[in-house]
Amino acid sequence: MRQRNKPWAQEKLSSYPQYVIENVVKGIWNEQFVNKQPIHIEVGTGKGQFIVGMAKQHPNINYIGIEIAKNVIVNALEKLIEADVQNIKLLNKNAEDITEIFMKNEVSRIYLNFSDPWPKKRHEKRRLTSKTFLDLYAHILKDDGEIHVKTDNQSLFEYSLVSFAKNGWELQNVSLDLHNSEVEDNIMTEYEQKFSAKGNRIYRCEVRRSI
Amino acid sequence: MRQRNKPWAQEKLSSYPQYVIENVVKGIWNEQFVNKQPIHIEVGTGKGQFIVGMAKQHPNINYIGIEIAKNVIVNALEKLIEADVQNIKLLNKNAEDITEIFMKNEVSRIYLNFSDPWPKKRHEKRRLTSKTFLDLYAHILKDDGEIHVKTDNQSLFEYSLVSFAKNGWELQNVSLDLHNSEVEDNIMTEYEQKFSAKGNRIYRCEVRRSI
Repeated sequence: MRQRNKPWAQEKLSSYPQYVIENVVKGIWNEQFVNKQPIHIEVGTGKGQFIVGMAKQHPNINYIGIEIAKNVIVNALEKLIEADVQNIKLLNKNAEDITEIFMKNEVSRIYLNFSDPWPKKRHEKRRLTSKTFLDLYAHILKDDGEIHVKTDNQSLFEYSLVSFAKNGWELQNVSLDLHNSEVEDNIMTEYEQKFSAKGNRIYRCEVRRSI
Repeated sequence: MRQRNKPWAQEKLSSYPQYVIENVVKGIWNEQFVNKQPIHIEVGTGKGQFIVGMAKQHPNINYIGIEIAKNVIVNALEKLIEADVQNIKLLNKNAEDITEIFMKNEVSRIYLNFSDPWPKKRHEKRRLTSKTFLDLYAHILKDDGEIHVKTDNQSLFEYSLVSFAKNGWELQNVSLDLHNSEVEDNIMTEYEQKFSAKGNRIYRCEVRRSI
């Protein structure tokens, strides 16, 4: 979905330095938060419903939402201002740069929710579960760190399952129809809410690096 | 589906020694066939539509269908008599005994089609993709041997994907909706024909032992 241009977005983002981090120094992320606790990030955090919901539900985790589109992350900021939670920061950055953002082993979990499927074969490298990205994730994740994926895109999910297997990630958990499964505390993204209401299946999996 | 009792089944099976092998000697399977060529087996071959169809389509493979239920395998025998193909044998045996039936590395591929889901946790070991069975398959399969799974049972498929990952099998290929995917030459089982006609999704995957 194309977002309308918001010329005021940058100014708004810059006005909330307690929520939106502009000058990143890797390795000292926990100093940005009130409490030193595990860091979970969402790559492509969109309008923020998921990560803001997670932060409210799990005060013992520090959340960082990364989103490249200014016009979109500004929605997440608005939710965050309203929620007034302390354990979440937003980053208006490109996922390709995450090894510039985080130190080796700094992150405990990565969420990839409804990522762009990039269906054309020639765009495979742009998919957030391609080898290119999995290698970046492996670098910043702790040894027992996990990636959690949700999507309604069947092809992307099929691709992701195979990509994880081929690149040394072990499937820990999988649901092929999340909203008709027994799940605890699923926090929905905006997209998930809309598409599951239409009857689309939501796929979900959790992987960990193979030992 | 409960099959009606067929008291004549054993006699019929015994009347076709060219198709139904009763005295198994492992390690010399290729001597049972006209041509020495790769061996693919189906564990739980049921009424035989899949394996007889495969044997017709792939004359360069030797097929062996294993089925414990006499009343069911006799249907496969009838199809085989009618098809009159030379590259297929049937075995009225228990899947638990496959390491008594095949020598190490004797098999190139194993098909598991619409296996009993054994949904209760306490019956997990009976599922044909449990660790117990995967260890048996690893023994009889060649190093580059594959397992191909089809099922319409979502829980069994989820279980199988995780079981493969945990037990050292690498996912090579996956389809989460086989009949709405681009597939070449899919031979349907009786069950698949019936259930996909009702609109049930068919799941499919291929795995290989991780190197």
